[in-house]
Amino acid sequence: MKKIKIAVLGAGGIGKACLDVVAKKREMEVVTICDSNGYLYSPNGLRVKDLKKLRPSKDPIGDIIKLKDRYDGIFVALPNLPNEFIPGVVKRFIKAGYDGVFTCALKRTSAMKLMMKLGPALKRNKSVYIAGCGATPGLLSAAAVLAAQSFTKIESVNIWWGVGISNWDAYRATIREDIAHLPGYTVNRAKSMTDKEVERLLSRTNGKLVLRNMEHADDILLKKAGVVDTLSKVSVGGIMDTRHAKKPVSTTMTLTGITFEGKRSSHRFILGDETSMAANVIGPALGYIKRAIWLRKHKIYGMFGSTEFMPMVVK
Amino acid sequence: MKKIKIAVLGAGGIGKACLDVVAKKREMEVVTICDSNGYLYSPNGLRVKDLKKLRPSKDPIGDIIKLKDRYDGIFVALPNLPNEFIPGVVKRFIKAGYDGVFTCALKRTSAMKLMMKLGPALKRNKSVYIAGCGATPGLLSAAAVLAAQSFTKIESVNIWWGVGISNWDAYRATIREDIAHLPGYTVNRAKSMTDKEVERLLSRTNGKLVLRNMEHADDILLKKAGVVDTLSKVSVGGIMDTRHAKKPVSTTMTLTGITFEGKRSSHRFILGDETSMAANVIGPALGYIKRAIWLRKHKIYGMFGSTEFMPMVVK
Repeated sequence: MKKIKIAVLGAGGIGKACLDVVAKKREMEVVTICDSNGYLYSPNGLRVKDLKKLRPSKDPIGDIIKLKDRYDGIFVALPNLPNEFIPGVVKRFIKAGYDGVFTCALKRTSAMKLMMKLGPALKRNKSVYIAGCGATPGLLSAAAVLAAQSFTKIESVNIWWGVGISNWDAYRATIREDIAHLPGYTVNRAKSMTDKEVERLLSRTNGKLVLRNMEHADDILLKKAGVVDTLSKVSVGGIMDTRHAKKPVSTTMTLTGITFEGKRSSHRFILGDETSMAANVIGPALGYIKRAIWLRKHKIYGMFGSTEFMPMVVK
Repeated sequence: MKKIKIAVLGAGGIGKACLDVVAKKREMEVVTICDSNGYLYSPNGLRVKDLKKLRPSKDPIGDIIKLKDRYDGIFVALPNLPNEFIPGVVKRFIKAGYDGVFTCALKRTSAMKLMMKLGPALKRNKSVYIAGCGATPGLLSAAAVLAAQSFTKIESVNIWWGVGISNWDAYRATIREDIAHLPGYTVNRAKSMTDKEVERLLSRTNGKLVLRNMEHADDILLKKAGVVDTLSKVSVGGIMDTRHAKKPVSTTMTLTGITFEGKRSSHRFILGDETSMAANVIGPALGYIKRAIWLRKHKIYGMFGSTEFMPMVVK
């Protein structure tokens, strides 16, 4: 069996964990990975322990682009600070004529709007990009599309997540992306915080971040799929505990609607408390890579949201 | 906007409710429907009240086949007693050269196996069939595919449903299909029971049917999608209360697996208690018709399971 070869952009918490997830898959292997300082390539697959051999580079993305004929798909696991960053990286691949597939775990609505503009260029390249393929948007927003089927009117989609991380510095970029959602903070302010400043903020809240009405792209992706007519029907929030691995609350997607008989009810999709953020982000992102390859094989190209397709199971 | 015109085969509980659901949709209309005694056609759409005008016919399926250029998709809402019945009906459409799309709410594994054999013939006709598009299989098995994404090993998929129907005789065929799963009963025995015999059986159990280890096609559809490697990992059962509209238990899909970190956990998809069987069967079946039309538009033909695609939202 020919394995699906993937490139992972980003070697932070999610990128590293992606190497561990793929190590458990027969159908897939990571052949190249980069962070902001260097990159690594091996046609025989990479493991976390290989990361110490990262080759220093002034333009790691450029190096991965040069290898573009050596992989079938790209998982973009870069921190997205500022909003233009990931769309900018993708533009470079498009400009270089990369004609494979992409998935990402992009979260912020404003970044997703920039990303959505790349559809025509991706089509010209015969590429497929499925955006927002993590947990939220991703797993939970796809569950909302399923849940919507039982109703003739959708009133609300509420995503309330719990994440527990025992050592926040393994997910420094993720935490900063979340801090950016706090009242009084911006993407730029969060990005420019030193680790000490983050520590200080977290110590004031006992290590917990409570995030309400987050600017999450679940809203535009659910509108794209026709689940909601207005973005305001979708709300995303949650609690991040940066001092305990145990989740502070169970991550739950609740879709409330009216059935054809006029009954109001809610379907719920609840993630097991023992599943980590990494498991719930990387699994779907890889499943969507397989789906993106399927789409491309059927000559269906362009930019899609994770709400439009079912991820495939990667064995 | 050009509406999606559909044919509904079956005018029992599900077929009737389908007319009510479609009445709430802007994008879809039912133009023809039949039961075992007659059929009805109107290019302008049908409502439940029109059913009293059903035209008697000796071969209602044959009459619907004659109208094959007047609709885009078929929802097969026939009772499937015996197992060969629905596959036999579909074969007639194929033989007549129908080249549109089908969905069905087929439940029994042995019937699904017969259905799956029709793939090559459907392909030759440039048709698409998505099978098992009700609640289980359908909504709940698709949710299992999503849930599976977080795990690197799947241990079990358990579907436990609750259905409450205040008047069982509105769903006579459905109830008989369920009785066929009881120990000591067969499809033929259930089919041949008179209404009085069904009444007598139900009166012995206070109107409730408890069904365990049902032969439901969720198993082969989840295997087809790669979620499980053996059918025995999937179990389906539930409780049907034929005397109260309130569900005796909340319908729940529980998928248990091991994450890449070695943690065992379960994701759950729970249907709102106020949603009826009709809402949870017909909504997905129509969503999958829209997906089947999408597939056909992209020249992707053949036989698929509801676990392979995301249903689309029908507005």
